[in-house]
Amino acid sequence: MTGGKATDRVTAAYALIDRLDRPEVWIHLREPEAVLDEAAALDARAADGEELPLHGVLVAVKDNIDVAGLPTTAACPSFVRIPEMSAPAVSRLTQRGAIVLGKTNLDQFATGLTGCRSPYGAVRCAGLPDRISGGSSSGSAVAVALGIVDLALGTDTAGSGRVPAAFQGIVGLKPTIGLVPTSGVVPAARSYDCVSVFAAGVGAAEHALAAMSGPAPDRPWRPIPADAPLAAPAHPTVAVPLPSDLAGMSAEQLAAFDAACHRLAAQGVTIVPIDVEPFLAAGRLLYGGALVAERYAAVGGAVESGGDEIDPSVRAIIGAARTIPAHRLVADLERLDQLKVAAAQRLTGMDALLLPTVPEHPTLAEVAQDPIGVNTRLGRFTTFANLLDMAAIAVPAGTADGGPFGVSMLAPAFADRVVADIARLVTGEPAGTAPAPTGLPLFVVGAHLSGQPLNGQLSGARLIRPERTSPEYRLFDLGTTPARPGLVRTGPSGRHIDGELWSLPPAVLGELLASLPAPLALGPLTLAGGETVTGFLCDRGATEHARDISEHGGWRAYRAATAAG
Amino acid sequence: MTGGKATDRVTAAYALIDRLDRPEVWIHLREPEAVLDEAAALDARAADGEELPLHGVLVAVKDNIDVAGLPTTAACPSFVRIPEMSAPAVSRLTQRGAIVLGKTNLDQFATGLTGCRSPYGAVRCAGLPDRISGGSSSGSAVAVALGIVDLALGTDTAGSGRVPAAFQGIVGLKPTIGLVPTSGVVPAARSYDCVSVFAAGVGAAEHALAAMSGPAPDRPWRPIPADAPLAAPAHPTVAVPLPSDLAGMSAEQLAAFDAACHRLAAQGVTIVPIDVEPFLAAGRLLYGGALVAERYAAVGGAVESGGDEIDPSVRAIIGAARTIPAHRLVADLERLDQLKVAAAQRLTGMDALLLPTVPEHPTLAEVAQDPIGVNTRLGRFTTFANLLDMAAIAVPAGTADGGPFGVSMLAPAFADRVVADIARLVTGEPAGTAPAPTGLPLFVVGAHLSGQPLNGQLSGARLIRPERTSPEYRLFDLGTTPARPGLVRTGPSGRHIDGELWSLPPAVLGELLASLPAPLALGPLTLAGGETVTGFLCDRGATEHARDISEHGGWRAYRAATAAG
Repeated sequence: MTGGKATDRVTAAYALIDRLDRPEVWIHLREPEAVLDEAAALDARAADGEELPLHGVLVAVKDNIDVAGLPTTAACPSFVRIPEMSAPAVSRLTQRGAIVLGKTNLDQFATGLTGCRSPYGAVRCAGLPDRISGGSSSGSAVAVALGIVDLALGTDTAGSGRVPAAFQGIVGLKPTIGLVPTSGVVPAARSYDCVSVFAAGVGAAEHALAAMSGPAPDRPWRPIPADAPLAAPAHPTVAVPLPSDLAGMSAEQLAAFDAACHRLAAQGVTIVPIDVEPFLAAGRLLYGGALVAERYAAVGGAVESGGDEIDPSVRAIIGAARTIPAHRLVADLERLDQLKVAAAQRLTGMDALLLPTVPEHPTLAEVAQDPIGVNTRLGRFTTFANLLDMAAIAVPAGTADGGPFGVSMLAPAFADRVVADIARLVTGEPAGTAPAPTGLPLFVVGAHLSGQPLNGQLSGARLIRPERTSPEYRLFDLGTTPARPGLVRTGPSGRHIDGELWSLPPAVLGELLASLPAPLALGPLTLAGGETVTGFLCDRGATEHARDISEHGGWRAYRAATAAG
Repeated sequence: MTGGKATDRVTAAYALIDRLDRPEVWIHLREPEAVLDEAAALDARAADGEELPLHGVLVAVKDNIDVAGLPTTAACPSFVRIPEMSAPAVSRLTQRGAIVLGKTNLDQFATGLTGCRSPYGAVRCAGLPDRISGGSSSGSAVAVALGIVDLALGTDTAGSGRVPAAFQGIVGLKPTIGLVPTSGVVPAARSYDCVSVFAAGVGAAEHALAAMSGPAPDRPWRPIPADAPLAAPAHPTVAVPLPSDLAGMSAEQLAAFDAACHRLAAQGVTIVPIDVEPFLAAGRLLYGGALVAERYAAVGGAVESGGDEIDPSVRAIIGAARTIPAHRLVADLERLDQLKVAAAQRLTGMDALLLPTVPEHPTLAEVAQDPIGVNTRLGRFTTFANLLDMAAIAVPAGTADGGPFGVSMLAPAFADRVVADIARLVTGEPAGTAPAPTGLPLFVVGAHLSGQPLNGQLSGARLIRPERTSPEYRLFDLGTTPARPGLVRTGPSGRHIDGELWSLPPAVLGELLASLPAPLALGPLTLAGGETVTGFLCDRGATEHARDISEHGGWRAYRAATAAG
């Protein structure tokens, strides 16, 4: 993925760390010698031909995620433990050739969005050292933004994987709850915790997510639905907030947000303003209600016994949750269900929701003056995502007020590929950087091709590539409405026929088959490279009186020629 | 469904009610005149040709479920409200022609499994009046068992829809959480409440469930997965408890349970003893831990203000939940997640879990002496089901100790059809009583037929019926391994070809298509009756040198002939 030798990359990273004055990024930085040994071993394995898709990718890990043999502190020194096993989120990267440089600073117990709540020091913004980095995954985001590592793992309960991405001008991907197991992660609020990824680009974050996803033996598995989308549609519809929802943001921030909307619209995205109040109301429940008891359940004992090591804001928030009665938590969960219904209604017909990631970028001094008030304001557009079971990705979108400006794309659970695709339209990153889809292949030759009338039936499908058949097929115009061709395997008398290879969610392929009209069928078809995939076929009996259009090479060329003629 | 006139059925039901000395069954019985008017109107609509699949089906509704215009008390007189709208569970039945006779008695606020916790009187067992009916859906179960109604709605949080089924010797179906909306239902524990159905047979309960299922506008919808099974496999594997798990049951009960296992084994079911302790431990969390706070959140205010109307056991249980701290609830939910993992591991490779529904059948006197202790014992094999997100059905299985004995079949969420199918093997009810499956149709002609080598690929599929093609097809032996035929539409030169029509979960149809080898394909095929469904087709080019076996009429007849020859 990275090219070059892992040892060279490690050497360069440590040289950069030495050059930069950013000690607060790390809680535990590994000794370079040990890391170089590991890199050399990986280089040797790669030289032997072993497939290591993340060979030499450098990774920083937030210090509430276990890395075997390194201390985990969650930014509370007395909480320290040295795990024997890495969290699956980490080991699934290192097994593929990634190298962990160390453990990064965070808001203590992942409780905060400022990056200032740590006995290891407040983490300064990568580009603007008088401003905050954002948190709680502060060190991880700054390590990526400074170019020390390629990827960094964070956690995200209320926005900890997105707020620092916005302040650093990088990508922060917060997957659907449960895609990446939280085994080996110090819980913040167990029902809403996610492992998140920081990277310079959407594609790198998606590749990391693909590697980290999958069940763990110690957690109930939440299977990916068989109709979960593998991609955004060609022309998505994106909801945006009403102007009143953005009150308090600066003129430059509003202009940057507007520019992101225009950028999407210019690429064929339909922008629809909606009332986002149900989303924001859900977010306020996380700290404003009884749900904060999840934090007491997770680390309340450590907060109460931690003495001076405990950040005053963290102590105030978590300590106060000790006496919340359980029936209030139940009532808040019922209220949350009502807001889920209202939020889902608002998103009916929409592919995603676009929001500013953070409404302001405070200085370190501002946070010191009002640590809890500023924190609450920072979470305005992020806190609801996990409560409402949404997938989210934060991406850079220009600048405002002298620093990076960021937006977030959100969609319901398991639409992770959808939000990433639409986020690419904001950043301009090509779609080709996405990992390969995991659905079932389908070769299409006619009305299901991109831009053709039935392409919309490929719901949630992803275009893999333009393709063509082996030279054994002939194509006929069936004379139907809508116009559709029929593909027949004729053997030696055939030729290559152009089409497209798509990947479909299994349930969508089943539904497509069930709605297929005669004389079409779906079955194995041979591609030019010899690969066999499912494709559209036609009963050859039905082609006897149909026009043979094989000489055009494909349906699009034939249609273009007949339209011209 | 019932035949005859609805008015006659209503008249007969009220005559039966008069004859029986069971006033405690009802909290509110409707005036016969109003019901007869409603029945007459339905008869008129049916006579006009309107399709009313539940025409004249008589229904009793537990008095914690709203019926428009009738009081809802939840067995607490001062809690009374008269709703304007029926719960969707009710209106979806009445819209199809069912008739509600009245509201039935229950353990107050659905808190209890005895049927004795009601100011409207303890409900006596239908067949053994000195024993308890079981609860909390006591009146509903007895109304079905006495033959007054065809169906009765209950609710089931800890077993309230299954325990009374066992004591009455009837069927109690507790669907997957969320299939039937709990809108218009007084909550007991909102996360774990289900609307349940009592009926004399499995099929009648399944038809009612099919009618009641579907999203409601005021609840987050939990969609049915696209790979959810539509049926049990032909030869299921069923887990049963170890002998030690059944400690304390009487010799006759153990013998009846053993007989149910043998009955299953005799029909090709593989019986596998497993350690069910993780299931039972999960069940103990409902009342033994902090989850009872859900009950305080639901009706704590009513319990505290209810004065003498509140049952002492109900007050003791719900009142004590007021001060449980929220962080303890969070910790118990984490423990429950661990037990979910352990329980899922125990059920790996199993299609269902078979348990006795209740381990004893107490007298009214025994409950009066130790109301909470007896109640706890009654829930031993039922309480875990909703906590572990399982589908369950309780069915009669012979007699023990002078009364009915019952067993329950349980399986993970959305396996409702699976547990019903296997439960039929216990009761001997024919599979033909099940409602039509909701999947995608597939006509099979060869190796996927019942009993043929690839039939197992139809995972979760349901056989609809033996079928045959229109008289336009010919069948060829392709000479493959495993042996497979190829079906080709030849038009006038063809004939009827025998096969089977199945219904498949959409994702399973997609996966089957993706694994199909050439020269086979799937596409539209015409059945003898003219209906078009997806079927196995074959490229006619591949049949040129294959043996035409059409004269046998189908693959099974051909195979039988060639095996004999």
